[in-house]
Amino acid sequence: MQQELLASLPLRLYAICALLLALKMMAVALATGSLRMRRRVFASPEDYRFQGLDASAQRDPAIERARRAHRNDLENVLPFLAVAPLYALSGASDAGAWLCFAGFTTARILHTIFYLTGAMPHRTVAYAIGFFLTLWMIVSSAWSLLR
Amino acid sequence: MQQELLASLPLRLYAICALLLALKMMAVALATGSLRMRRRVFASPEDYRFQGLDASAQRDPAIERARRAHRNDLENVLPFLAVAPLYALSGASDAGAWLCFAGFTTARILHTIFYLTGAMPHRTVAYAIGFFLTLWMIVSSAWSLLR
Amino acid sequence: MQQELLASLPLRLYAICALLLALKMMAVALATGSLRMRRRVFASPEDYRFQGLDASAQRDPAIERARRAHRNDLENVLPFLAVAPLYALSGASDAGAWLCFAGFTTARILHTIFYLTGAMPHRTVAYAIGFFLTLWMIVSSAWSLLR
Repeated sequence: MQQELLASLPLRLYAICALLLALKMMAVALATGSLRMRRRVFASPEDYRFQGLDASAQRDPAIERARRAHRNDLENVLPFLAVAPLYALSGASDAGAWLCFAGFTTARILHTIFYLTGAMPHRTVAYAIGFFLTLWMIVSSAWSLLR
Repeated sequence: MQQELLASLPLRLYAICALLLALKMMAVALATGSLRMRRRVFASPEDYRFQGLDASAQRDPAIERARRAHRNDLENVLPFLAVAPLYALSGASDAGAWLCFAGFTTARILHTIFYLTGAMPHRTVAYAIGFFLTLWMIVSSAWSLLR
Repeated sequence: MQQELLASLPLRLYAICALLLALKMMAVALATGSLRMRRRVFASPEDYRFQGLDASAQRDPAIERARRAHRNDLENVLPFLAVAPLYALSGASDAGAWLCFAGFTTARILHTIFYLTGAMPHRTVAYAIGFFLTLWMIVSSAWSLLR
């Protein structure tokens, strides 16, 4: 029965996009960790002790940037992971699923690249595309569920 | 088969509440963005450059408040979006689903309003209602799954 | 039909681990709230007024530590809650589900304990185990879905 669930194109596409988005978020975590090691700026005093360094309260602009990109993912990618399967289950067309899921995933991968490189207004455009695709999925699912 | 999944009242109600809660979180994001434009306080130096302003390190209390409300949603609404479908799937009654899903959604919408307007102890009461409904869903689902 | 969904061992195990992880995140929230009351350090000015205290801008190291542990959960546990059901639905073996779900849950419970007690490198080891189990679930699910 489970295999059946992922047999429909919208849910299968959702699954692939969700895996890609989770991978992308892990890449941001790796980038933050690697910056912390190279810049030797950590969040907790025991991290400095473990590296044999004096605790420092300084903040690094590149690390703070990666953390903002990560938080933006928490605020946008995680709600997508709840909304998108409901959109798929409430009778999305294959074309709608392609547009919303592949579109959102592309927009969010670009958003991270634009955030980490400080590219404006590109970052805002990528954010807005993800935002409006999520909004569209919510409205469209609610319409299917409530009519 | 998918349509079947959302045909049961608890899962259908979950879907509608999840869409509402995602919409509510997006409203907080919009409020933060709109405050940033009006107060001209941004998170990244390239945002200041894009607006033709000098980068400023100042923090705005209203923006920080909206960000706290948003983070509180990440900490509470997102776990609900994982716990509630398990509660629905583990044999919730229609009445239980109504109480938990509509109750949580109402509590969290009020929580945001109370947070943004600084209404205490109302904010803490709304938070506690959401917290205990989540706790109840966890205990009740675990009971169904493990007995 | 829903009962059927949670009848398979991988999904049933996912459900129990997801409930445990949500409970663990709520415990961190309780720890933060309890520290705030004892240390009398709050996030919003109305909280100080409600306690009859003067607003203070000070930060408490123990509270900031609990908040970092909580944010680390948002960044790692929440993506797990989206990835793990896809891993279960894409044909995980019972042994794979046991290893990944029970392993991840144990690693994240230990991660919180190590974070709150400042135990290094234990915290990083627990983090890495959760990270690689998530990565393994993503790769393994994508392989099943795309081949």
